[in-house]
Amino acid sequence: MTLTPSTSTPAVDETHRVQLSDLKMPTRLLLGPGPSNADPAVLSAVSMEPIGHLDPAYLALMDEVTTLMRYVWQTENQITFPVSGTGSAAMEATLANVVEPGDGVLVGVKGYFGHRLVDMAGRYGAKVSTITKPWGEVFSLAELRAALETHRPAVLALVHAETSTGARQPLEGVGDLCREFDCLLLVDTVTSMGGVPVFIDKWGVDLAYSCGQKGLSCLPGISPFTMSSRAIEKLTGRKTQVANWYLDVSLLLKYWGSERTYHHTAPVNLTYALREALRLIAEEGLEARWQRHQTHAEYLWSELAKLGLTCHVDPAYRLPTLTTVKIPAGVDGKAVTRKLLNDYNIEIGGGLGELAGKVWRIGLMGYNSRKENVDTLLGALKEVL
Amino acid sequence: MTLTPSTSTPAVDETHRVQLSDLKMPTRLLLGPGPSNADPAVLSAVSMEPIGHLDPAYLALMDEVTTLMRYVWQTENQITFPVSGTGSAAMEATLANVVEPGDGVLVGVKGYFGHRLVDMAGRYGAKVSTITKPWGEVFSLAELRAALETHRPAVLALVHAETSTGARQPLEGVGDLCREFDCLLLVDTVTSMGGVPVFIDKWGVDLAYSCGQKGLSCLPGISPFTMSSRAIEKLTGRKTQVANWYLDVSLLLKYWGSERTYHHTAPVNLTYALREALRLIAEEGLEARWQRHQTHAEYLWSELAKLGLTCHVDPAYRLPTLTTVKIPAGVDGKAVTRKLLNDYNIEIGGGLGELAGKVWRIGLMGYNSRKENVDTLLGALKEVL
Repeated sequence: MTLTPSTSTPAVDETHRVQLSDLKMPTRLLLGPGPSNADPAVLSAVSMEPIGHLDPAYLALMDEVTTLMRYVWQTENQITFPVSGTGSAAMEATLANVVEPGDGVLVGVKGYFGHRLVDMAGRYGAKVSTITKPWGEVFSLAELRAALETHRPAVLALVHAETSTGARQPLEGVGDLCREFDCLLLVDTVTSMGGVPVFIDKWGVDLAYSCGQKGLSCLPGISPFTMSSRAIEKLTGRKTQVANWYLDVSLLLKYWGSERTYHHTAPVNLTYALREALRLIAEEGLEARWQRHQTHAEYLWSELAKLGLTCHVDPAYRLPTLTTVKIPAGVDGKAVTRKLLNDYNIEIGGGLGELAGKVWRIGLMGYNSRKENVDTLLGALKEVL
Repeated sequence: MTLTPSTSTPAVDETHRVQLSDLKMPTRLLLGPGPSNADPAVLSAVSMEPIGHLDPAYLALMDEVTTLMRYVWQTENQITFPVSGTGSAAMEATLANVVEPGDGVLVGVKGYFGHRLVDMAGRYGAKVSTITKPWGEVFSLAELRAALETHRPAVLALVHAETSTGARQPLEGVGDLCREFDCLLLVDTVTSMGGVPVFIDKWGVDLAYSCGQKGLSCLPGISPFTMSSRAIEKLTGRKTQVANWYLDVSLLLKYWGSERTYHHTAPVNLTYALREALRLIAEEGLEARWQRHQTHAEYLWSELAKLGLTCHVDPAYRLPTLTTVKIPAGVDGKAVTRKLLNDYNIEIGGGLGELAGKVWRIGLMGYNSRKENVDTLLGALKEVL
């Protein structure tokens, strides 16, 4: 016996049936910590009609995306594909796949996203230990060695480019150290990929993630992910199932690998967007792109100095993609960002955590890393201050 | 002491630097199980420049989205917002937030997505029990009552519209049953929301999820999610932390609620797309939209009958959004779908699981639920068969 369907459906409640006009959004120059403006070619790609996620034309597109991600990340890793979510989902994918309950995870905390790694690792049952630095500083190899000796973790997690501080953690030699201590190296490249040199293989990085909306000039909602053969060994040697279905690489690989077995419906249009964003990077070339970011950041720093503004991070570790600028004494930092947004349509960011109220965050990422954007921002800032 | 940054970066490996031309994709008529074609207004919205996820203009947009989601789902639930991932992420969000290790979860399995619920619930430590039906059938109230008496679960999970079978599970009375047995009712509305009557509150549904790319005519990558006050009680009464950071509603609520605290960068452009998709539903009206789906599905069924083709599901439980058609004896089902795709640019789906090789799946969802699409498909099918 089965239920008979109701012959009459209930009356529809019209309370929330608001009638709106077509979407109209302000046009902003996004010079904060992200999202940055997308490249026009990316916006054109994302608006094409979707096709099926198992369509041969889509499967060919997936191969283009993984190939180009390998170029931008400088890796031969077989497992290199985008996660169907924002950067935080890709971050969670790195931990979810290699951490089993009781595994030691050592996190270098020197900003907001270090804390996020701690929170996430704990949810997967990791025995989490931390080393810390004031926000804006970085760890030395000697400090990392000492911490590995003390904690003997299964995973060392470091943020390469801290979006909350604008500091770049040097990674040369860290991979060797992790091999010496037989642990995996997990690296956040959210604010470095596509704007700052990243060498996944040469640096011995085992797990990495990024996002779409910063150095790649794509859009938020699709996020690069990669894992090395050492990390795959950890995954295949698990005694417990990955405690996250959506991000389980052993399942995702059946779709991204040769089997092409359905896992979840891909975010088809964002994959179009990512393909275009990566294509443009290959066209420009990594060295040229990194140099462009460095050049315009240095121009920003020199122009800021002319206004009497100083940067929070030591020049030796300062990211070209994201600059933290000290808010001068007596200046209401929030009023400045509000005025820039409302009167000039320019977004810059405020500080987070230890740096809340102390800095502004200025991003020059991907498509937005251009001299005219620095001039536009500095012109507005001059008027506002 | 800190590391000095390397004075010279390694040489860039050019192996994967493939040079591609602009993205060109075929235009398909998507009449499979999803994605369906997006409404042109949705594609126009998704291609607008992103703005910041804490921009006042974006926060106002978020309120429009949650209001319109409440209309389409017919709910007053405070927690009603889209998850930043595809439908499977929203599915996982329902389970991750209310299931604690040891909780009983009873899943009604009558298709592919019932099995997926079983898999996911197990990953969150649930004591999973199942009742099953052959694919294409549905459960009666009496069967559900008997199962609740036997298993006494904390959660009953049912798929309202099984994308793998085309059957609609009647839900009238199930909410009352769940209150009688003090369990939460979790419902998959992936292939029903926006195309088939769904009454979250009147049916006493406590947790529900959907996707963007079917009845809503939006795009994959952003997915409606809602939970009732009963489900919130279960969440706030947890003894353990939600074992998933990205989908933890207690964190997400701080962003979607009045605090507007940053959690993860929103998929800004997909939110534009969803806002437009929901706006168009409010403009059309739910009753008109449901009737449109029913009318064109009935036209499809009658035209299929003229070709001598029969449907797999009993008319009493047949979904208007997704029709499973029996592949006639002697016909190579895969050759037909391939020919439709390659020669006619029309996508329909094959069968999954118990129905693999036995049925085709034809979707008429959202924007695509139109008489001319039925005519186009049937014309092509006639030529191919």
